[in-house]
Amino acid sequence: MARLVVMYKTPKDTAAFDTYYFEKHVPIAKKIPGLGKYEVSQGPVGTPAGASGFHLIATLHFQDVAAIQKAFASPEGRAAAADVQTFATGGVDMFLFDNREV
Amino acid sequence: MARLVVMYKTPKDTAAFDTYYFEKHVPIAKKIPGLGKYEVSQGPVGTPAGASGFHLIATLHFQDVAAIQKAFASPEGRAAAADVQTFATGGVDMFLFDNREV
Repeated sequence: MARLVVMYKTPKDTAAFDTYYFEKHVPIAKKIPGLGKYEVSQGPVGTPAGASGFHLIATLHFQDVAAIQKAFASPEGRAAAADVQTFATGGVDMFLFDNREV
Repeated sequence: MARLVVMYKTPKDTAAFDTYYFEKHVPIAKKIPGLGKYEVSQGPVGTPAGASGFHLIATLHFQDVAAIQKAFASPEGRAAAADVQTFATGGVDMFLFDNREV
């Protein structure tokens, strides 16, 4: 299994971010082909030392990294990536990797 | 469910890192009380644009953020955190958050 981890830095207006994210972005992102489970952080994203500077972390599950790359190249994936740019006012980091249990 | 995400930046010696991580650190970390599933990235950690600067991402599952905080305060959690400092030569970021499916 592979993961696409999307880390949203704290935006200018967190309430507006949350409304847009859950009402508009999630339905757009859910159309991405090959997407399995879609998880989001709930409440603050902390570090062992305190606040993290990140507002929300989304974890999207795919079969493998090739499936993530195919998803990014699809019209639905491009629409989701373009949409991110409209509301991620604090910036966003994305990481993709294969994942296994140890 | 909550997650502790441990993001290791690319260390000076990736082969030495991997040997230590899987042979020494994983058995130490697995003793952390309250730890459920323990996942690690396999192969490169990428971004949509290419290389990420991160070598390995570990995702540790716990019941809730309170369980992570209890784990950090335990002798086994302190031992695992102290061990990280011995091999994470590139630096490490840790994030903890409650997580839910959307």
